Amino acid sequence: MHYHYYKIIVNPGHVSLQNVGAVNFFCNYDDSRGNYLVDVDGNRMLDLYTQISSIPIGYNHPALLKLMANPNNLSTFVNRPALGILPPENFPDKITESLISVAPSGMTRVQTMACGSCSNENAFKSMFIWYRNKERGHNSPSEEDLSTCMINQAPGCPDLSILSFMGGFHGRTMGCLATTHSKIIHKLDVPSFDWPIAPFPRLQYPLEEFTRENAQEEARCLEEVEDLIVKWRQKGRPVAGIVIEPIQAEGGDNHASPDFFRKLRGIARKHGCAFHADEVQTGGGSTGKFWAHEHWGMEDPADIVSFSKKLLSGGYFYRDELQADKPYRIFNTWMGDPSKNLFLAEVLNVIRRENLLEEVARSGKALLDGLYDLQAQFPGLLSRARGQGTFCAVDVCDAATRDRILLQTRDKGVILGGCGESSIRFRPALIFRDYHVHLFLNIFSDVLAHNK
Amino acid sequence: MHYHYYKIIVNPGHVSLQNVGAVNFFCNYDDSRGNYLVDVDGNRMLDLYTQISSIPIGYNHPALLKLMANPNNLSTFVNRPALGILPPENFPDKITESLISVAPSGMTRVQTMACGSCSNENAFKSMFIWYRNKERGHNSPSEEDLSTCMINQAPGCPDLSILSFMGGFHGRTMGCLATTHSKIIHKLDVPSFDWPIAPFPRLQYPLEEFTRENAQEEARCLEEVEDLIVKWRQKGRPVAGIVIEPIQAEGGDNHASPDFFRKLRGIARKHGCAFHADEVQTGGGSTGKFWAHEHWGMEDPADIVSFSKKLLSGGYFYRDELQADKPYRIFNTWMGDPSKNLFLAEVLNVIRRENLLEEVARSGKALLDGLYDLQAQFPGLLSRARGQGTFCAVDVCDAATRDRILLQTRDKGVILGGCGESSIRFRPALIFRDYHVHLFLNIFSDVLAHNK
Repeated sequence: MHYHYYKIIVNPGHVSLQNVGAVNFFCNYDDSRGNYLVDVDGNRMLDLYTQISSIPIGYNHPALLKLMANPNNLSTFVNRPALGILPPENFPDKITESLISVAPSGMTRVQTMACGSCSNENAFKSMFIWYRNKERGHNSPSEEDLSTCMINQAPGCPDLSILSFMGGFHGRTMGCLATTHSKIIHKLDVPSFDWPIAPFPRLQYPLEEFTRENAQEEARCLEEVEDLIVKWRQKGRPVAGIVIEPIQAEGGDNHASPDFFRKLRGIARKHGCAFHADEVQTGGGSTGKFWAHEHWGMEDPADIVSFSKKLLSGGYFYRDELQADKPYRIFNTWMGDPSKNLFLAEVLNVIRRENLLEEVARSGKALLDGLYDLQAQFPGLLSRARGQGTFCAVDVCDAATRDRILLQTRDKGVILGGCGESSIRFRPALIFRDYHVHLFLNIFSDVLAHNK
Repeated sequence: MHYHYYKIIVNPGHVSLQNVGAVNFFCNYDDSRGNYLVDVDGNRMLDLYTQISSIPIGYNHPALLKLMANPNNLSTFVNRPALGILPPENFPDKITESLISVAPSGMTRVQTMACGSCSNENAFKSMFIWYRNKERGHNSPSEEDLSTCMINQAPGCPDLSILSFMGGFHGRTMGCLATTHSKIIHKLDVPSFDWPIAPFPRLQYPLEEFTRENAQEEARCLEEVEDLIVKWRQKGRPVAGIVIEPIQAEGGDNHASPDFFRKLRGIARKHGCAFHADEVQTGGGSTGKFWAHEHWGMEDPADIVSFSKKLLSGGYFYRDELQADKPYRIFNTWMGDPSKNLFLAEVLNVIRRENLLEEVARSGKALLDGLYDLQAQFPGLLSRARGQGTFCAVDVCDAATRDRILLQTRDKGVILGGCGESSIRFRPALIFRDYHVHLFLNIFSDVLAHNK
């Protein structure tokens, strides 16, 4: 089996594709189907990584191909509008069919964006605008606000902050990056903001066996959050918003309990900070619910929920209060892409028609049970198996072994992803079934035996 | 004639579309054709704004519809890859056909991104990474770099800056926004960076009649650029890069001479700063050359050229030296969208086959001549007509009159855009011909007579 690691930066005039990570190669997407990704040599691989968790219902799904064949949809693809000023006639209907049909509890509004980073950047801006108007007590900026903002100075560009968590990942544009603390490679050499960073609970797994210890750890982190909010207010950089992932993904698949998130939501409210749940990776069904925050059991889970990846378009839902007071405060040329919402409406139909969230809960349980078995069988190699739905992970003894296992598993026809320091993350599509779980576990078990 | 200004934020559970600017309404993109945009009542309007300058060859171009009908292209639309790790087999070919075929002089590499803001954010990051490695003299960060970057502190997150220009627009994510200084509405209430802002030349038009005065003004601005570079180095925030638009668009269609840009490029080189030409709006042919910087007549016009809009995909070209030293330093989930490159390859074919750059030069001359005539005819209303190709603008006596003229022109079936304080900008597609120029000038002349 021959894989094409790509590294084609050397030829002048050629595109710079230079990643040489664990699972990189050129793909044949024409022949990829369902859970199977095909490489250029025709090798069929079971895909548990799905383009960094961004393929919701597998490759070349017939429903999506059918949508493409409908001549009524053509113009949506060839005439990309400036959505903020000249939206297509059917856009409100399409958004109602797609995003609004899955709006988080308490949220009535949605703003589409082109990608996850732009979604978070604009969500942050919404929180800053909301916070400043709250500070003013009205929506009329002062003359000083107006003149200073044009030259990047306070009070027009205020010294506000977003509180984030160590291990969190919220994107790599400069606002997002100031809240991202998962890997050095993301942050090194890029100027940043002096914003507070709280510890994310470091729990012991399985969660149900360590409830007391985990509750203590979560209490410690929550206390630190409050301390930081007070401290940053005192140093003149008030916390306008708190951003957190329901499960830290890139940072190593770190979970926290519903109780933690409920209390954190309460702390945000108590201190007048907006609360932003970043569901870019957790949203879209892979935890067994459409949004991971549904596991918290709250009617009012957040002020802002951002999304991208499996929802095919970026964007964020938000509560009425977070609506900017004037048009053009949140704006850019494209503000999303209606062709992606067209696909999303169809994806949601498939999820409902095929009860995919129930399937995810079922195959997720099979996957996690399998990981528990393997970790019992290979205690020197695996530990801390954890997951919700198919959003599962397991730790490997060290990074070098993890990387080797990823390569060997790939050479046996299974695509996985790494995360954190030495974790493996599982991010199959929503059409992943028991059958595929067992296929995977057999191959993975062979690889582990080889590394014992 | 009835126009649907959209303001549908009021219904709970409804999408938040709330802009109520001058030319906003819902469009029927199925029936829009070529230079004509159609609204939901079937009103056909000559479009000189083209979705904020982002429709290269008009609506529903047959070549693009044909591309959609080719079954070989289907999978590119329905299987969006994580381009940074698993690119499609034909991606290097498609990029070679599309972006690489229009690579700016001296640039051998390109990185695609989803939108203009992400392009500039990542271009800035490339400049910071390059600058820090240059400061170090090698590519090995210190232990202190590694530990401090995770908590947003120097030296890992260094106090570097990007020098930008008053009136410039480079996007609205937080890194870009720190270099954007065109309108208050973009910047108010968003935290920013203490980065230097130089004056952009405020020239007198027509340029050829004021060469001496304009040269003095440009010399003044260049001197200020050098002063700022020195000053920011002294205060511990060295300028890693200079970013500038070849023509400031959003900020009011402000031009500068080729000589200005050549000297600015020289200043960047002298002080060891990277030079970034932001061609998000100027790129793609509307100045009569594919890139506006080609008018500067340089073999080595810049270190980075960013693009988006008419190129359908965001991204940036860059010189070899700006290549990040490790994979994953410049990275995100999608890193662009191959379906957009598919369209771009076809757009470039049409541009070449139909000699559209020559057409742009021709219709642009007719348009500018017409504006000169009208400004002579209505001296109390119009002034400072200016342009390159069809990338033209004219100033109106005040903002209220400008906005009224935009509305009245729209009611007579022509879409225009505003920019700056009281300018009108013309951004037709590349298929705009003499015939359309005269159609526009007749209507515009009527509206002006009405406002005299």
